[in-house]
Amino acid sequence: MTSRQRPGALLVFNAGSSSLKFAVFHAEPDKDLQARVRGQMDQFGVAPRLRVRDCAGTLLADTIFPATEVTHTGEAVRHCADWLAAHLAEEPVIGVGHRVVHGGAEFSVPVRVEPGALERIEALVPLAPLHQPFNVAGIRAMAAGRPDLPQVACFDTAFHRTHPDLADRYALPRRFHELGMRRYGFHGLSYEYIASVLPRVAPELAAGKVIVAHLGNGASLCALEAGRSVDSTMGFSTLDGLCMGTRAGSLDPGLLLHLLNHRGMSAAELERLLYHESGLLGLSGQTGDMRRLLASGEPEARLAVDYFVWRIVKEIGALAAVLGGVDGLVFTAGIGENQPGIRARVVAGCGWLGAELEDQANAAGGPCISKPGARVSVWAIPTNEEEMIARHVRRVLEARTG
Amino acid sequence: MTSRQRPGALLVFNAGSSSLKFAVFHAEPDKDLQARVRGQMDQFGVAPRLRVRDCAGTLLADTIFPATEVTHTGEAVRHCADWLAAHLAEEPVIGVGHRVVHGGAEFSVPVRVEPGALERIEALVPLAPLHQPFNVAGIRAMAAGRPDLPQVACFDTAFHRTHPDLADRYALPRRFHELGMRRYGFHGLSYEYIASVLPRVAPELAAGKVIVAHLGNGASLCALEAGRSVDSTMGFSTLDGLCMGTRAGSLDPGLLLHLLNHRGMSAAELERLLYHESGLLGLSGQTGDMRRLLASGEPEARLAVDYFVWRIVKEIGALAAVLGGVDGLVFTAGIGENQPGIRARVVAGCGWLGAELEDQANAAGGPCISKPGARVSVWAIPTNEEEMIARHVRRVLEARTG
Repeated sequence: MTSRQRPGALLVFNAGSSSLKFAVFHAEPDKDLQARVRGQMDQFGVAPRLRVRDCAGTLLADTIFPATEVTHTGEAVRHCADWLAAHLAEEPVIGVGHRVVHGGAEFSVPVRVEPGALERIEALVPLAPLHQPFNVAGIRAMAAGRPDLPQVACFDTAFHRTHPDLADRYALPRRFHELGMRRYGFHGLSYEYIASVLPRVAPELAAGKVIVAHLGNGASLCALEAGRSVDSTMGFSTLDGLCMGTRAGSLDPGLLLHLLNHRGMSAAELERLLYHESGLLGLSGQTGDMRRLLASGEPEARLAVDYFVWRIVKEIGALAAVLGGVDGLVFTAGIGENQPGIRARVVAGCGWLGAELEDQANAAGGPCISKPGARVSVWAIPTNEEEMIARHVRRVLEARTG
Repeated sequence: MTSRQRPGALLVFNAGSSSLKFAVFHAEPDKDLQARVRGQMDQFGVAPRLRVRDCAGTLLADTIFPATEVTHTGEAVRHCADWLAAHLAEEPVIGVGHRVVHGGAEFSVPVRVEPGALERIEALVPLAPLHQPFNVAGIRAMAAGRPDLPQVACFDTAFHRTHPDLADRYALPRRFHELGMRRYGFHGLSYEYIASVLPRVAPELAAGKVIVAHLGNGASLCALEAGRSVDSTMGFSTLDGLCMGTRAGSLDPGLLLHLLNHRGMSAAELERLLYHESGLLGLSGQTGDMRRLLASGEPEARLAVDYFVWRIVKEIGALAAVLGGVDGLVFTAGIGENQPGIRARVVAGCGWLGAELEDQANAAGGPCISKPGARVSVWAIPTNEEEMIARHVRRVLEARTG
């Protein structure tokens, strides 16, 4: 404990439409943050269920609430905060961080939620109507229950605000850009975490040209130059770029016009199609879950996996062009960390850039999985968005009390 | 003249919404085709104007017709055919070729327009509603006026039907693919022409990995492997891929949903925006004409040009990944053939691939514009879609009479 900060815990929320994830970190200054517990509440309004585990994975709680008791994010936040107050009383929460999907063009760093800030965050709802309202609801519920606690909004777009102007443009009339129709990029907290650990894990890449593949149920790539984001495959929304679990990724805009004009689809039907029925699920007709696709022998499942890999390889070429070459490739998130077969196929497709896989290291999970001396080194590095948020909260608290 | 074919002229039509271009070629077998005349009729229904020039560029006709006499493509075709019959009587037309924008998944080669074929071509109108109807009208008018003449439909998509399956997919449910929502690619007659002259102009590239940049008012890239198309930046429609004169190119599908759901735009307004108000025109707020942008000192004009180049460089990276490397880069079409400054900037952006410009050769127009020994050779080669169509017509006639 230093003079800058009193001891205590940092609480991190990640609110989705029907689930709320949280984690609690020790807040010792100048030390690596350690998660004490991680938890989740889901099935709002159906069979709301709270599960909490300690850092060793031991189940601390598994409770089902009456359906009417937890119907939305705000009530879930209150229940989780109550549970933590009751069960982690010896180290009270001193600050709260929230993952917020959209920070618009305005928020290029995390922001303390002070009067006025929540309204500015809420004003961005039209840019992320499927996600932002839950983030806002979580902040609001916490502020109502614990107005004494500092809260910090951490934006998934903020890390990309170092993009050069061209990378955030669409070729639309200027007024559209000024109205916010620009490329934002997402998964920023994940990329920021990876960039922050490169100097330790892969020091030769920290100052170099690196493409990070965040491959989870959502998937994107980020081009890093000396640890700063210069481009990303996601753009205005989380629909752009790679093929994902249930999202199509980039599509010809003319295809959407055709579906509207000649196939009688409404905008609402298009939205459901593109967010929930496409991607690996659409191609396979079976599932958007990579583990199940890899276990399946069906040709449609193979097509979906082939396509997923093909699109990643192609977009890596595009980002290499933006960087003017590439020194390293990093895989992270669920698929990136846990599917050596996918990593192997992507790296094979990047052989032309100078990437060469070391099979045993890849099978063992890395972190370095390329052959020594390969022109492009390749890595598998676990991401940790919650820790990144907790670090931001600590920094904001230190700045305030320091 | 051989036994395979009687002498005569080949007539080529390229029908747009408000203009009709045509060219007439000598049809000597086994010789390079030579254009005798080129002409254009435009301003249908306003001040229909027919202009014809011989191969030296001398004006042979410049006639304005009463507005009501030429109101659509069919009437324009009849007037042009009449003019040719009257003025080129010594070498009568023996076959007619039509540029047809869309051949769907069905037409992978040009096709003689025999009973049934026109209906199959017309059935593709929903895939290219802004272009295909004019192509169909041209064929129909010619068939009505000269039922004796063989007509050949040459599709702008056909050359891309050598794509591997993955390159023609979107990550949509299978039924969409089966309904035709796949990537077709366009400018195929231009790419086919370039591929056909590579063995003569750049023999070291003919068997290699080549990216061709067709940069005109419409713009796309094609990845060639041993002269066959393996991928292209245009997809389902001509809206995809690069930034163009008035077209935005690739856009996040989530951006279209936003414009529909949160900005109150209709599908018709979106279509107008994306085809006619975006691209270089949208970015600059001034013009979609590259010559005028390059002459302008305005920062918006510079932004538009910067963006145009940036997108080309990025997409070259993506196609290089598809090819697994690249041996050569070819510029063609209006901007590609005539703007050494644009070529220079694109090549500079491809330095990481091993492209190096030879400034003097670039200023002089090529064909080879890269430094001797550069890892990626670079070329400026004029395209000739009309000649490509005339060659197809000759081949179809030979196959018929041979």
